[in-house]
Amino acid sequence: MTDVETRAVHIRPATDDDWPALWPMLRDNAAAAETYTWDPHIDESAARALWMKQPPGRTVVAVDSDGTVVGSAYTRPNQDGPGAHVANASFLVDPKQSGRGVARALCAHVLDQAKTDGYRAMQFNAVVETNVRAVALWQSFGFETLATVPEAFQHPVHGYVGLRIMYRRL
Amino acid sequence: MTDVETRAVHIRPATDDDWPALWPMLRDNAAAAETYTWDPHIDESAARALWMKQPPGRTVVAVDSDGTVVGSAYTRPNQDGPGAHVANASFLVDPKQSGRGVARALCAHVLDQAKTDGYRAMQFNAVVETNVRAVALWQSFGFETLATVPEAFQHPVHGYVGLRIMYRRL
Repeated sequence: MTDVETRAVHIRPATDDDWPALWPMLRDNAAAAETYTWDPHIDESAARALWMKQPPGRTVVAVDSDGTVVGSAYTRPNQDGPGAHVANASFLVDPKQSGRGVARALCAHVLDQAKTDGYRAMQFNAVVETNVRAVALWQSFGFETLATVPEAFQHPVHGYVGLRIMYRRL
Repeated sequence: MTDVETRAVHIRPATDDDWPALWPMLRDNAAAAETYTWDPHIDESAARALWMKQPPGRTVVAVDSDGTVVGSAYTRPNQDGPGAHVANASFLVDPKQSGRGVARALCAHVLDQAKTDGYRAMQFNAVVETNVRAVALWQSFGFETLATVPEAFQHPVHGYVGLRIMYRRL
């Protein structure tokens, strides 16, 4: 393994000071329009409201040993009221840090925190089926695909592809 | 058939003037916590933002021949950006008007409008499985259940029950 692969990341709650590092990641991911159902032209204030969750939601960042933000995740209730005991989560990783386990570390953290918070399960509503690395990662954490909504995502290269609804108990 | 059952409803876009009739329906439905994943204590301003959709969303009302609002529905993109071609919809009917076909009339309208608007499919994310009348109604319109998220709804009488994800092409 290289140094990059073995460098550990630390995960902590996100603060307002983290936003300038997160905004380019979210903006570029939205513009690529390959992995999330975000407006490709989302503006910064909408992006900030989307990502920096208020309680009971949580937003965390993964930081390098030198404090550089290399990824982030949020959790929130997937539904309100009588559905608020199922969590939803979303993940962002700096593409330059891809392959060193940042998403895996974030997912492990988020699952632990969600269980501690009292959620009974976690549900992903829209995993793009061509995002095979993400699908494999969530499966490695025990997520199963409840259904694939056919042609629910318009991919810039692959055309209409399915969105997986993935789920695991906590 | 009785007079009540045969009285037709007219469906038109909702206006600000309709909100005072809609708020008690939404409030009482949320408080009952049997059919929607809404905060049972939702306040009026949050409820209004939830129901009275801005474009590209649409909110309509079903009105009696005397102008009384007897139900309502909204449509919106179920996801943003590359997922915005699948519609979502939600329905409210005055419980005093139950059984006369208001929900059916609203659903027929919403499906037609969504197709006209260019959506390719409609998805319901959270149909409470014990709401058997709604499930049967959506099935009669050709919706199929893609999956049932287990125990995703805490019902005040039945305990943890599933949420059906229902879908049909347009």
